[in-house]
Amino acid sequence: MSGNDRRIRVGILGASGYAGAELARLLVPHPNVEIVLLTADRKAGQHVGEVFPHLAGRGLPYLMSLSEVEWSGLEIDIVFCALPHGTTQDIVAGLLHETGHGLVDELVVEEQKDLVSSIKSGVKVIDLSADFRIENLDTYAEWYGQPHRAPNLQTEAVYGLSEFAREEIRSSRLVACPGCYPTVSLLPLLPLLEAGQVDPHDIIIDAKSGVTGAGRALKENMLFAEVGEGIHAYGIAHHRHGPEIEQELSHAAGEDITVNFTPHLIPMNRGILATVYVRLANGAAAGDLRETLERRYADEPFVGVVPDGVAPATRHVRGSNHCLIGVFADRIAGRAIIVSVLDNLVKGAAGQAVQNMNLVCGLPETTGLEQVPLFP
Amino acid sequence: MSGNDRRIRVGILGASGYAGAELARLLVPHPNVEIVLLTADRKAGQHVGEVFPHLAGRGLPYLMSLSEVEWSGLEIDIVFCALPHGTTQDIVAGLLHETGHGLVDELVVEEQKDLVSSIKSGVKVIDLSADFRIENLDTYAEWYGQPHRAPNLQTEAVYGLSEFAREEIRSSRLVACPGCYPTVSLLPLLPLLEAGQVDPHDIIIDAKSGVTGAGRALKENMLFAEVGEGIHAYGIAHHRHGPEIEQELSHAAGEDITVNFTPHLIPMNRGILATVYVRLANGAAAGDLRETLERRYADEPFVGVVPDGVAPATRHVRGSNHCLIGVFADRIAGRAIIVSVLDNLVKGAAGQAVQNMNLVCGLPETTGLEQVPLFP
Amino acid sequence: MSGNDRRIRVGILGASGYAGAELARLLVPHPNVEIVLLTADRKAGQHVGEVFPHLAGRGLPYLMSLSEVEWSGLEIDIVFCALPHGTTQDIVAGLLHETGHGLVDELVVEEQKDLVSSIKSGVKVIDLSADFRIENLDTYAEWYGQPHRAPNLQTEAVYGLSEFAREEIRSSRLVACPGCYPTVSLLPLLPLLEAGQVDPHDIIIDAKSGVTGAGRALKENMLFAEVGEGIHAYGIAHHRHGPEIEQELSHAAGEDITVNFTPHLIPMNRGILATVYVRLANGAAAGDLRETLERRYADEPFVGVVPDGVAPATRHVRGSNHCLIGVFADRIAGRAIIVSVLDNLVKGAAGQAVQNMNLVCGLPETTGLEQVPLFP
Amino acid sequence: MSGNDRRIRVGILGASGYAGAELARLLVPHPNVEIVLLTADRKAGQHVGEVFPHLAGRGLPYLMSLSEVEWSGLEIDIVFCALPHGTTQDIVAGLLHETGHGLVDELVVEEQKDLVSSIKSGVKVIDLSADFRIENLDTYAEWYGQPHRAPNLQTEAVYGLSEFAREEIRSSRLVACPGCYPTVSLLPLLPLLEAGQVDPHDIIIDAKSGVTGAGRALKENMLFAEVGEGIHAYGIAHHRHGPEIEQELSHAAGEDITVNFTPHLIPMNRGILATVYVRLANGAAAGDLRETLERRYADEPFVGVVPDGVAPATRHVRGSNHCLIGVFADRIAGRAIIVSVLDNLVKGAAGQAVQNMNLVCGLPETTGLEQVPLFP
Repeated sequence: MSGNDRRIRVGILGASGYAGAELARLLVPHPNVEIVLLTADRKAGQHVGEVFPHLAGRGLPYLMSLSEVEWSGLEIDIVFCALPHGTTQDIVAGLLHETGHGLVDELVVEEQKDLVSSIKSGVKVIDLSADFRIENLDTYAEWYGQPHRAPNLQTEAVYGLSEFAREEIRSSRLVACPGCYPTVSLLPLLPLLEAGQVDPHDIIIDAKSGVTGAGRALKENMLFAEVGEGIHAYGIAHHRHGPEIEQELSHAAGEDITVNFTPHLIPMNRGILATVYVRLANGAAAGDLRETLERRYADEPFVGVVPDGVAPATRHVRGSNHCLIGVFADRIAGRAIIVSVLDNLVKGAAGQAVQNMNLVCGLPETTGLEQVPLFP
Repeated sequence: MSGNDRRIRVGILGASGYAGAELARLLVPHPNVEIVLLTADRKAGQHVGEVFPHLAGRGLPYLMSLSEVEWSGLEIDIVFCALPHGTTQDIVAGLLHETGHGLVDELVVEEQKDLVSSIKSGVKVIDLSADFRIENLDTYAEWYGQPHRAPNLQTEAVYGLSEFAREEIRSSRLVACPGCYPTVSLLPLLPLLEAGQVDPHDIIIDAKSGVTGAGRALKENMLFAEVGEGIHAYGIAHHRHGPEIEQELSHAAGEDITVNFTPHLIPMNRGILATVYVRLANGAAAGDLRETLERRYADEPFVGVVPDGVAPATRHVRGSNHCLIGVFADRIAGRAIIVSVLDNLVKGAAGQAVQNMNLVCGLPETTGLEQVPLFP
Repeated sequence: MSGNDRRIRVGILGASGYAGAELARLLVPHPNVEIVLLTADRKAGQHVGEVFPHLAGRGLPYLMSLSEVEWSGLEIDIVFCALPHGTTQDIVAGLLHETGHGLVDELVVEEQKDLVSSIKSGVKVIDLSADFRIENLDTYAEWYGQPHRAPNLQTEAVYGLSEFAREEIRSSRLVACPGCYPTVSLLPLLPLLEAGQVDPHDIIIDAKSGVTGAGRALKENMLFAEVGEGIHAYGIAHHRHGPEIEQELSHAAGEDITVNFTPHLIPMNRGILATVYVRLANGAAAGDLRETLERRYADEPFVGVVPDGVAPATRHVRGSNHCLIGVFADRIAGRAIIVSVLDNLVKGAAGQAVQNMNLVCGLPETTGLEQVPLFP
Repeated sequence: MSGNDRRIRVGILGASGYAGAELARLLVPHPNVEIVLLTADRKAGQHVGEVFPHLAGRGLPYLMSLSEVEWSGLEIDIVFCALPHGTTQDIVAGLLHETGHGLVDELVVEEQKDLVSSIKSGVKVIDLSADFRIENLDTYAEWYGQPHRAPNLQTEAVYGLSEFAREEIRSSRLVACPGCYPTVSLLPLLPLLEAGQVDPHDIIIDAKSGVTGAGRALKENMLFAEVGEGIHAYGIAHHRHGPEIEQELSHAAGEDITVNFTPHLIPMNRGILATVYVRLANGAAAGDLRETLERRYADEPFVGVVPDGVAPATRHVRGSNHCLIGVFADRIAGRAIIVSVLDNLVKGAAGQAVQNMNLVCGLPETTGLEQVPLFP
């Protein structure tokens, strides 16, 4: 930050969910940020310390409902959207003053136009929902069950896998942060596909996640007694992160590909692990994959390749913005196994969002993200 | 049991481990069994209720060291060996009066010969260790780090996957019970390979297990603080259950095959889940696999196929001898996903051992094994 | 059971909750019972195997809503009510044909009278809710926020702590099973108060429970991510089990007493532990308390006193109907510490209910309740 | 730190345990500290990243055995001792050049004297073990099973409950950091005893701790399968933290007192909660206790009183140096309940140690300790 040192004024929409709370955890001590707005429709009027006692006493604003926000005067620079899927497109269109296209302008009544015009021009949006991740509008509609409501903005949105879209993110006003499963899957796979070292048509991603990946919504299958002391697969061949992963892998492969993506629910709060099974291509061996990844991530602060023979564990990245990757030869000739881990709420959500904010705001990318993992 | 109603006299060697305790849990209420011997070298002299308070007050004998057992008079019919890998071959040779071959006869001193002769002739052994599971002696030596000490008995031992070796088990005096990972992997895969519906050269088994699979030995990586709130893969491409799985799958496939087997440690006590990725063969579709499995297991009391669309969960078999299997079409054309679950201490260890004892003793196979799973 | 061997025909109201499922787990293998009715209003029309996959394949009836039950023809002998607090009084009044008093007769319209008259006369009710536990109608109204709706039946109801009301239960048609916290607290305290060995005015019960005690209702504070990896007290000085405990302790003390009861939520599924701090009275020492409890429970099949120096653990009673009690001298002179454990879903709910059913039906009290605990 | 900005050179003895690792987690990002020494006898020669992968890549030195340290050249300012109880007295005596008294001088051979003389004069010791916590040498010998080996240093050591010994700590060269249970118990109780608001002879501390409080030593009762899904009390009336708590409470009460202290093991990694039952004195009500605590801690950065009616939870302090306290009226007249929580590895160990180091070094007390808690 330059000498005049005005802090970046930040709002978090959806602050009563886990990703919203994690944004607050990371942004409270961030040296360049001031949190000036927290919205949470169902908990409006409460202090964030009532909803999240671990955030009490940090000088944070009260929770308010989105419709009650008086934007003029807030002078917000950055809005983080941590809202449920399917609810963000209209809101982002309003925030970005893009009311002249798609479904939005039919919906925005005069009052809302006033509202929109009171939002500081030049605000930028870091979206943690899936609403702007899927480029193909038909694919979006198929997997999310409704037509896209801001297609022009979709064109503009940058898929915010920080390590692969750094430059686009820096100049973007709408960053669509990847999902947790896509992040943990793409970081190991993209360099290997780009290098042509794995067969793009034989990729199996067996993923395991802690429960916070499902958010804080009340669902019977998220009760402690339903999750504890057990494991199961879910969304088999039907999880929405499948097409998101395929979109990015297809770019890297230079052709449309379909992958196997099978998630499992693990009785733990945080952490996500992907075991990726690949067929080697073009004469590559497992060691070549390791080399490619080591070279690709040598200068990356948040992505590392663990030493040969070491298996990455989610507990070693808990609470941090790190992704760790290991590479192993398979006993089946011509195949390899890649294991990748991260904290789903940090590198898989709020941490990557802050990393992208740093890029958007011209700050050093690691600012506010240097926590040492919490183990045990 | 016939009218004279003498109970089967059972000994458990290695009764201070989790598999030993689980054998006791199942055998205490078994209507045809009397437990007359419990050995545990490091806890000799203690009552089992001191080591396992949940087994107190059940009239069980004191723990003794194996060397102190006075066999004459015990009149044991069945010995369960729940000892660590690599320690069972000599012991079983002695139990079965097979001291004339291999390394054993060099080791058995006169005193031991006397000991052996005091063991009731006709005793039968249900072994839960890996010592008699591997048919090929070189493979055994390679993976277990020592030459086999009772090769003649190896020839005689029956690999005790109950549903696939019922007749051999009935007439055997040495049953080598499968490991937990092999059991959960073989039950879904064997019928499909026999039916020629999956490509034997493209099988990936991504397995997840609770911690009791590692036993009760003191290892730093089994401490609560090392396991809780995290997940990691281990033994990648090097786990000893790999060759065991391959041995049985090779029999079914009619050719030597190599599979991918990658285990993961889950922060839970019990339960094991295998997610098996297969390439379909001979024009089969996922639905055909389902049909094959439903037909194969229609009359099996302990193996079931869950309804289409349902994902099996370990918590729904906890404490029971059941294995549940689900079949799903993959989004990659020509592939399918099979999920299989069981309780590693029951169907994956002690339950299958009791099932085999029932077979060996001519009892109804389900005797003592009809517990409803414990959920939550 | 006598030779004619008609099975007891049982209905479970509220079969989609954890206590209902646990009743089914225990009653399915019960040799004298046939489950002929399962109700669950919100899951009506589903098979119990869809709601609780661990109960699939057991020949259980479909779930139906209570209002759709066609009672005539069911010929039910025993109804277990596992419904939420505050909903059971009207229903029980109907089941017992007691429509002539209280609020009930105003509410029961003609149609309902027909319904009631179709219920087999002589049905007996084992209630697991709190609706008939509190003798004093004002206390009930104060703590449960509504007037009692069947006061005449309240007079008749037996508080079903099996070990202390055996004879009354045998001849009762309405048994109000104690709550989980009261059961784990009363079993150690009642004999000591009766013996005059502890000061009734200085009793502190610090209790710790797993999450299933809170049932299966959707509450944010029961999500895995809210409960895992943490502990907190709740309902401090305001938990409804406080007055229930005081009612029974007052009977034993022969005077009205108030106790401290402070429950805590533990990140585990099952198990409840009470650490009870008492001041010794009438010259008693800790050893005298131990003796009193050992003598009191010497012939009880489900309550035991652990050896001196041993601390009872919930994991050693998991899945069983046992309560274990330990007694310790305090370092403060004249005080003692008592620790009591049980499985909240078994001895604290469904197990004790089945025990009471056995009493009501004249069966041996332990029938169907001889499970060895599941450890680990 | 002043302009010349030489960093404080820190050594951690016992860096392969959990407290040692937590010290590293907190000190790596500490702006005024450089870690120049890590010892761990059993893991000497390994990089800390092999032992604790979450600390890899942080520029930390290799682990060495204590006997191999070449002190000259290290120029260490502060030594943190995170060694097992009973092993620290000799070592600290050497570090502080106090070899002329007690048992130590008999033991220190010439070579060791050379070693000692190579240690920078003026080094200060922050000890996390219990070796210097107990003032009374007889009490120490009784509870720790061996005579004190550096009694002169014991006289000098400051009991480092930061909020109560700030000035003494600032000028001390040997700070004995309190245990986790004492910290969570003393913070609520000391101000109340000083205010005369609670009866010092009727204090019951029912404490609950996560497993990391027991350290990383290999003990069967710390295996995941022994701890998971259960709860038990331990060390009832015999835990070593009892006399430590009593020592400090006696100072505050102005007379020797005995308290009830009963710890329980909870299936979680981090967190400690004390439920304290007190009898009110001198006409105080629960509200008065609250006021006393609010006033006492109004300006303390790390100790807070939660709002009336709110129950503190360990999960809301996880990973942070905070202690939260709640006060509740008991239903028994004249009694109150106090609940206190903290993270046993932070405020209960490494965090308080760093807080004390800040005091010793004249740094702002909160430096490096401003982490927001990690929830979920």
